Amino acid sequence: MSGLQQRTVALAASVRRGEISARDLAVKVLADIESRDGNYHCVTRLLMHRALEAAERVDRLVLQGRDPGPLAGVPFGIKDLFDVRGEVTTAGSKVLANDPPATQDAVAVAHLIAAGAVPVALTNMDEFAYGFATINAHYGNTRNPHAPEHLAGGSSGGSAAGVAARMFSLGLGSDTNGSIRVPASLCGVWGLRATQGRLSVEGSYPFVPSLDTVGPFADSAGGLKACFEALSARPLAEVDVRGLRIARLGGWFGENMSPPMQAAIDGLSMALGATDVVELPEVARARAAAFVISASEGAGQHLGRLRTQAAEYDPAVRDRLLAGALLPSTLIFQAHRLRHWFRDRMHEAFAKSDILLAPALVGEAPRFDQPEIEVGGKMVSARANLGLYTQPLTLAGFPVLTVPMKVPGKAPGLPLGAQLIARPGREDQLFALAEKLEVDGLAEARLI
Amino acid sequence: MSGLQQRTVALAASVRRGEISARDLAVKVLADIESRDGNYHCVTRLLMHRALEAAERVDRLVLQGRDPGPLAGVPFGIKDLFDVRGEVTTAGSKVLANDPPATQDAVAVAHLIAAGAVPVALTNMDEFAYGFATINAHYGNTRNPHAPEHLAGGSSGGSAAGVAARMFSLGLGSDTNGSIRVPASLCGVWGLRATQGRLSVEGSYPFVPSLDTVGPFADSAGGLKACFEALSARPLAEVDVRGLRIARLGGWFGENMSPPMQAAIDGLSMALGATDVVELPEVARARAAAFVISASEGAGQHLGRLRTQAAEYDPAVRDRLLAGALLPSTLIFQAHRLRHWFRDRMHEAFAKSDILLAPALVGEAPRFDQPEIEVGGKMVSARANLGLYTQPLTLAGFPVLTVPMKVPGKAPGLPLGAQLIARPGREDQLFALAEKLEVDGLAEARLI
Repeated sequence: MSGLQQRTVALAASVRRGEISARDLAVKVLADIESRDGNYHCVTRLLMHRALEAAERVDRLVLQGRDPGPLAGVPFGIKDLFDVRGEVTTAGSKVLANDPPATQDAVAVAHLIAAGAVPVALTNMDEFAYGFATINAHYGNTRNPHAPEHLAGGSSGGSAAGVAARMFSLGLGSDTNGSIRVPASLCGVWGLRATQGRLSVEGSYPFVPSLDTVGPFADSAGGLKACFEALSARPLAEVDVRGLRIARLGGWFGENMSPPMQAAIDGLSMALGATDVVELPEVARARAAAFVISASEGAGQHLGRLRTQAAEYDPAVRDRLLAGALLPSTLIFQAHRLRHWFRDRMHEAFAKSDILLAPALVGEAPRFDQPEIEVGGKMVSARANLGLYTQPLTLAGFPVLTVPMKVPGKAPGLPLGAQLIARPGREDQLFALAEKLEVDGLAEARLI
Repeated sequence: MSGLQQRTVALAASVRRGEISARDLAVKVLADIESRDGNYHCVTRLLMHRALEAAERVDRLVLQGRDPGPLAGVPFGIKDLFDVRGEVTTAGSKVLANDPPATQDAVAVAHLIAAGAVPVALTNMDEFAYGFATINAHYGNTRNPHAPEHLAGGSSGGSAAGVAARMFSLGLGSDTNGSIRVPASLCGVWGLRATQGRLSVEGSYPFVPSLDTVGPFADSAGGLKACFEALSARPLAEVDVRGLRIARLGGWFGENMSPPMQAAIDGLSMALGATDVVELPEVARARAAAFVISASEGAGQHLGRLRTQAAEYDPAVRDRLLAGALLPSTLIFQAHRLRHWFRDRMHEAFAKSDILLAPALVGEAPRFDQPEIEVGGKMVSARANLGLYTQPLTLAGFPVLTVPMKVPGKAPGLPLGAQLIARPGREDQLFALAEKLEVDGLAEARLI
């Protein structure tokens, strides 16, 4: 038992009042991870020393009557592509494993520690963040805490599953094509892909620089908000949720859902009065453009190493990088033209709405022994296609908050996630709605 | 004789005072082009109807005592990639020759006509602007008016040579990698590549959208300035030329010059007191990046037509476009990264200077029967390499004014051009220095 019965905001309040010692909590959390992580493979390294250092600082500030920060004592996991001082940043690979340790923390890590949070572990991921599965040839596969025979999703699967397994309250991940939204939804926790460029990626290992974002997972809407405020180093404006106009994305985002996902999205739309349906044009092309940009920029990061160390890559990632290196350049020009065009269409889609609602995935987490999902009546690879609904939105760079839906009065299957999308920079509106959904019992993180 | 004894500013003043009829002048200019253009092949089509229409409007305004504009009656040539109402925009190609005529003027053309200038001709170019030679398999080669066995340079060679041959006073061109600066220098006229994005490219046929600019040629520094003010639709601020700090670009831009060019640049530097030498890093890579971006974006514009009409392309351009279509996409990502980096280094190069001076070319115009220049001790293709000093600057997007140098007390050979480079948006500084060079007898357009 790690002592994570309280969710983020309440937990930090207890630490701030001195009712819980951050150090005692950190020791319990570290021991708990050590004893239970074998079941899920969320964690690749414990941050024993850094955890105790951060926790002791919090306790000292509390004792001195000074402010330990809004996330005082809250344990968090860190996707292993963020620099952590003294640790080698592997980005889930073997080819970086002999690099020198980082000499300072990534900006995101530093912000959370400054807010009082306690870094407890580095977490598992698809190699170089190139996948939606957290299936890793070097460090093993992260299992879904709600059903260990099922995927946790990826690429930030270790951080998402660690929150769902109550190993830590918050997680840091990165989302290029859906790498926060997919595992948050499959594991039943809250997640945010922030507006492109809003949160600093400094000190995180790049995958696709023009699409990369970093962001949080959390055990609660309030925790997600507090974590985002710490990451952006400023408080969000208060938003009156009654004034928000909510519509539903149709077309591409209304097709291919499994019956439970369809029922959950229909129910949530109805509860929100989201009767208007908005359609985006050329969503398939937008997704293709994100694919092409990802493959090309991703490969561009690795050309040198692929020439000399190809055999050390995860085979599934190596194939993708090599294919990306062979893409003709004219596709990139066209993809970026479409990107500008699609972004304009996204703005138009918000003409009469503040928030758009869409499913995060076609359904529940697939099984490891059948890692496929049904799209257009066919079974296709989960690793490549779990981003069906997340990847087109990436191209536009708008912020997306992933909601763990709760279907009132129904025995739950595996978790189902929805995407709430806002205009660039309007995370404040997303959090206002997220907190209302939680209060109203329409959404809730599922923690084991 | 076309009546173009007066240079732009004086000519417009004469028309504005009613001393010269714009219509009479236009008729003379059109007749003169018809009789003399066979020597040079500057012009591909006369704009008889549009010329008379514009000239008559000017005369009518003068007669009514109203303002005919600062370029009243000044004849100008138009590179055949700008839309002119009623004319097919061929961009120097056959594949567009059966397209419908343009229904409105390009923004640049419309601005000049609104300022009182008179469009008299469409001018020759490398097909799709892809070359530094104005050697065109369909429409012939433009000859240097100062030595018809020598290149005029390109791709905007017809507009530059037409000004040098006194067929029109101003020319419109476009500069992607040097297509204004190269022919201006080889023909001995003034030319400007404006700050990337400052002048609208609307209504011009694209070559490399992320590097394309449009701009003027002129018979005088004052003419170039008046033309730029008309193109940007606002007057420039006055700049005190005495306060300008001028340095010379060294390194890449100090090597490979022919003896006459070296002497001319040394003389101009000395006259300007430009004793400081500034070096830019990685200029070879910057040029390579501009090459790669050009090849890829250029090919991207033509993929569809190349599949069905490849045989109708100019062979020299077709080969370049096909090669561009085969470039791997990862190069583009790297080229754009270098572009940002190099732009930052350009800003640093201006830390202690307002204007940087560099040669425009290694030397004089090469001959048609030996279209090569000497670089690094080897003879290389002029068509590909005339942009040696212009192309790296393209990558940064800074404004560059091309100066026809005059070496005092020396019998001139063929024209030699220098580049004056300023910070983004500081064309006002470039024009202040250009006008002073003209007044001081250090620069002068060479018109036949």
